[in-house]
Amino acid sequence: MTHLNSTQILLASRPTGWPTGENFEVRTVPLAELADGQVRVRNEFISVDPYMRGRMNDTRSYVAPYQIGGQISGGAVGEVIESRAPELPVGTLVLHQHGWSDVVQADAAAFSLVPKIPGVPNSLRLHMMGMTGLTAWVGLKVVAQMKAGDTVFISGAAGAVGTAAGQIAKLLGAKRVIGSAGSDAKVQLLKDKYGYDAAFNYKNGDISGQLHALAPEGIDVYFDNVGGEHLEAALDAFNDGGRGALCGAISSYNSTQPSQGPGNLANMITRGLKLQGFTLANYLEHAGEFSSQMGQWFAEGKIAYDETIVEGIEHTVEAFIQMMQGKNVGKMLVRI
Amino acid sequence: MTHLNSTQILLASRPTGWPTGENFEVRTVPLAELADGQVRVRNEFISVDPYMRGRMNDTRSYVAPYQIGGQISGGAVGEVIESRAPELPVGTLVLHQHGWSDVVQADAAAFSLVPKIPGVPNSLRLHMMGMTGLTAWVGLKVVAQMKAGDTVFISGAAGAVGTAAGQIAKLLGAKRVIGSAGSDAKVQLLKDKYGYDAAFNYKNGDISGQLHALAPEGIDVYFDNVGGEHLEAALDAFNDGGRGALCGAISSYNSTQPSQGPGNLANMITRGLKLQGFTLANYLEHAGEFSSQMGQWFAEGKIAYDETIVEGIEHTVEAFIQMMQGKNVGKMLVRI
Repeated sequence: MTHLNSTQILLASRPTGWPTGENFEVRTVPLAELADGQVRVRNEFISVDPYMRGRMNDTRSYVAPYQIGGQISGGAVGEVIESRAPELPVGTLVLHQHGWSDVVQADAAAFSLVPKIPGVPNSLRLHMMGMTGLTAWVGLKVVAQMKAGDTVFISGAAGAVGTAAGQIAKLLGAKRVIGSAGSDAKVQLLKDKYGYDAAFNYKNGDISGQLHALAPEGIDVYFDNVGGEHLEAALDAFNDGGRGALCGAISSYNSTQPSQGPGNLANMITRGLKLQGFTLANYLEHAGEFSSQMGQWFAEGKIAYDETIVEGIEHTVEAFIQMMQGKNVGKMLVRI
Repeated sequence: MTHLNSTQILLASRPTGWPTGENFEVRTVPLAELADGQVRVRNEFISVDPYMRGRMNDTRSYVAPYQIGGQISGGAVGEVIESRAPELPVGTLVLHQHGWSDVVQADAAAFSLVPKIPGVPNSLRLHMMGMTGLTAWVGLKVVAQMKAGDTVFISGAAGAVGTAAGQIAKLLGAKRVIGSAGSDAKVQLLKDKYGYDAAFNYKNGDISGQLHALAPEGIDVYFDNVGGEHLEAALDAFNDGGRGALCGAISSYNSTQPSQGPGNLANMITRGLKLQGFTLANYLEHAGEFSSQMGQWFAEGKIAYDETIVEGIEHTVEAFIQMMQGKNVGKMLVRI
């Protein structure tokens, strides 16, 4: 019993606009003795994700908002260090949603056993081989019904979901994959490492013009992580029958102004377009097929990834804010 | 051979904003003798429809724009008055897309034979029993995947498509159907005649508030004929998993300003919403099922309708403009 305490990050107040350190509180609490059926887990990596910003607001959404004074829940991967549940013995690698803390304990049912696979780092369970990769897979294949031969545009392409989505689109047979990102270095990385056929820096402006130049024959599928002007550009670029999967709208998450929608929604009628928003919770039945396909691609050396790792639970809030600012490449993680 | 001439309406110039008489030209041309395989048809009714406004612009769309100096094509129903095609003898009732003229002749392939059904007026082939009804059917059943028990909101509910859609939604088992229209008299008519459970006058403002008051438990399906603020209100009112069929955006057709889109598209992500634009041309395979079901409902006395009929080909442009201004109730038609 080396860990008798748990250090946790709580929501202290709801952010207005960009979150700051003052919106959070770090507390260390002693842990009770394990009850029957419980396990204690030492986290190895915890995840900071864009959707968490939405849960910091007190608005209706697909998951309940975080409570003031409550812990920030979310994905984490760790190892069982003490167990009173025979199905999860000490040393088991587990995935869970208890979020921002170093040590967590609860009923065994709150943890999923993750088989250790040689060559697959544990951190990948929080991105390429986990929720992030599954989000990309579901958005492309199920929501946007991407087919081989499609031209695909992905916004926020250098983020965790975007780097997964670009590779998955190519592996599923996309004719051409175009990405947008917020720096020239990221644009280069998308083309060099992540299989994007073309990419542009949206901070150079004229998103619609840049997209048109790289996709002169139009796009069939749009995977939206950004919203706003990016969505408007996609609506201009869509071919007849185009499909958009709306996964995120990071351009508006920290805005205190009401956002303005695209002025070209009428294209949806004349071109027969479909836009569908989604959150992973409604598509978990695809996890099996995804894991098996992604595991195979990974074993074949076809999946590249980047991680931006911040060390120490005490830097979690900082990591979260940097991720919202686009300072990460690939998946932003905190190592405990 | 009583008709030797054809009076036709041509596009003289592209309208900017609201069309006026000056954008059109009426001409009377002599008709050539029929060639082998051709028929001559005297139109009984011609249709004026919102989508025609889009075709008057020179913009990319699902159908080619009208050409300057070319005839305004569109739906019409008439009778064969001279025939050199054995499959369409004199006296046959036909439907066609030759549009705004009193007499038209062409190869028989350009006309569809319409069986005369006792009790079904010919004009209904241009609305409830024709394209208009099919548009409502496809939008609800195929595009928005309406299910029995759904709460359905229909904008522009007193128009031709809206009066069809409200009745079809109820007959398909909608729990509650709510409509918007542009006058108190229309609102009353929707409730008294067209089976709407509730309706409101959008000219009273606060569309979102009025909709919420009439659908406090939210909506599952939105049939959009209007766009703009109506779409924004629907996006606020949608329950999780809501589906919108985008059929028209009459609020912007005559605008010379770029329209502003809804600021609440992020609801699509958090609530898993789907919006899909459509035009009938891609859904014609549903015509058979629709005709059979609609014919049965009509025979059972379950289908109400209104027509606003303007007399004389020379008043077609006036009828078109009045329809765009919402001065019609039900289907706007020109009787020749």
